[in-house]
Amino acid sequence: MSAKKIHIQEVATRDGFQNESKFVETEDKVSLVNALSACGYAKVEVTSFTSPKAIPALRDAEAVMHLITRQEGVVYTVLVPNVRGAERALSCNVDEVNLVMSVSESHNRTNLRMSREQSFAQLSDVIQVVRTTPTAINVSLSTAMGCPMEGDVPVETVLDWMQRFADLGAHGVTLCDTTGMAYPSQVKALCEAAKRQFPALELTMHFHNTRGLALANTLAALDGGIDRFDASLGGLGGCPYAPGATGNVCTEELVHMLELDGYNTGVDLAAILAASARLPDLIGHDVPSQLLKAGRRSDLHPMPSTESLPEQNAFATSPN
Amino acid sequence: MSAKKIHIQEVATRDGFQNESKFVETEDKVSLVNALSACGYAKVEVTSFTSPKAIPALRDAEAVMHLITRQEGVVYTVLVPNVRGAERALSCNVDEVNLVMSVSESHNRTNLRMSREQSFAQLSDVIQVVRTTPTAINVSLSTAMGCPMEGDVPVETVLDWMQRFADLGAHGVTLCDTTGMAYPSQVKALCEAAKRQFPALELTMHFHNTRGLALANTLAALDGGIDRFDASLGGLGGCPYAPGATGNVCTEELVHMLELDGYNTGVDLAAILAASARLPDLIGHDVPSQLLKAGRRSDLHPMPSTESLPEQNAFATSPN
Repeated sequence: MSAKKIHIQEVATRDGFQNESKFVETEDKVSLVNALSACGYAKVEVTSFTSPKAIPALRDAEAVMHLITRQEGVVYTVLVPNVRGAERALSCNVDEVNLVMSVSESHNRTNLRMSREQSFAQLSDVIQVVRTTPTAINVSLSTAMGCPMEGDVPVETVLDWMQRFADLGAHGVTLCDTTGMAYPSQVKALCEAAKRQFPALELTMHFHNTRGLALANTLAALDGGIDRFDASLGGLGGCPYAPGATGNVCTEELVHMLELDGYNTGVDLAAILAASARLPDLIGHDVPSQLLKAGRRSDLHPMPSTESLPEQNAFATSPN
Repeated sequence: MSAKKIHIQEVATRDGFQNESKFVETEDKVSLVNALSACGYAKVEVTSFTSPKAIPALRDAEAVMHLITRQEGVVYTVLVPNVRGAERALSCNVDEVNLVMSVSESHNRTNLRMSREQSFAQLSDVIQVVRTTPTAINVSLSTAMGCPMEGDVPVETVLDWMQRFADLGAHGVTLCDTTGMAYPSQVKALCEAAKRQFPALELTMHFHNTRGLALANTLAALDGGIDRFDASLGGLGGCPYAPGATGNVCTEELVHMLELDGYNTGVDLAAILAASARLPDLIGHDVPSQLLKAGRRSDLHPMPSTESLPEQNAFATSPN
């Protein structure tokens, strides 16, 4: 039996960098995207065509898109908030646009400063523009597994918003656990319901590790039939509600788990670990990745010589 | 249907503190154990009757055991490396002794400075002493899911060591992922095999989060029939092979996940979070717990007033 294919979508250069205060130089972004392009990802979210005033960290979106070397087989997607952003993205020949709104009213108002209906109207306009082109359309639904202000979000609410975007012709939907509120049994039930109602949509799960649950939730999503995951190199990407908390699920930790469990991600773990190791230089601080510190399970250690063993070790049995 | 009971065993005051360079004052240890005793744990590993020279951090084992106020229903266990340690522990009327050896030869030699057979002989002597008393005997098998020097450890090796200790009369066995090498499919298979061969043994899984997999492995162990887990408040406890890496699975993150998933741990999450919040003062540094930073899923945030919203938010749609 051949291993089941799991599609890994890298979001560090968009979802990660947009949260960084330090501007990553355009040439460094291009170099990183080019490196990631050779790693076996299904998709790379390169940048965001948002207002440069809103997200100065990604003000070089056009330049990055024009300078990268695209790899066949990799889908290059970008975030787009409105028609102006879509036009900019289309002028760069992106493979996909990724639209975002929250499925909880409070979070949408806080994050996007408009109602969900206003967001939907705006994104509908984007879709009208993009659907006349060969560019694919993905919709990322934030707070799909919980809202930091409202708490639980009913599965029906999530499915309703999926339906509205499916009806407009979206090709894919990403369900985002924006602030790390998802838990395994919830994830499995949601994934099963979404797969059942939308068998033709490309479904992605987007987990955050804010409460340590990203990999456990991934297992639950696999159990619920999902085969496509967003992840962020090094675990880049924060949570505005939890200062100091980790952000997106860490790509190298996700790939490490999946490959050990016998899945085929197609991602070169050694290569992404090397790329992740370069992140602290680019952003000026350490990254949350535990795997980067600990190394892969298969990275064995030499046995220390007897002389180098500490005289006082953990369970030393010298006469008490 | 009533929720399935999961037994949570706190190890921070032993497995956590033994790794700390700062000595936690005896009265602070006692105060912490007393606080934990009221939290609903099945078991608390209070301390270690090791040589004070070997582990100076736990040199006050007798004092701590004598000064704590025991709570009915909580099992107070202690680590014991040899007959001398067992005699000290028995003089303190502990409920259980916890014996440790590694199932991989290299790790046992590195950690305990003797062969596995020498460890077994020494622990057999301990068991001969303890089994004449009402005190329970648990054996913790280190590197049961991988050795940092040897790599994979065959399931048969783990089961063989379990069998040898079961034959001597051990009541429980803990399978320890000492350096965080376990992965979900492996965990499930090991748990199923252990449950099948030893239906009468009290089986505990002891996970480390070194590579971010502790909660995912917990899900796999639940799937494999396990209902008893070690965990460390705040995620205390390091990994000598991965400087800066997190250690034991974090108790509050484990309980948070299990309760959300509908299990009954009996543990008061708010109370252990309060106890965890006191740890940085005791040990002089931050703890790995993400949940302590992020708060529980149910800890909702007020919606910010419109005035306080940042002008530049993540997906702002001001004219590009």
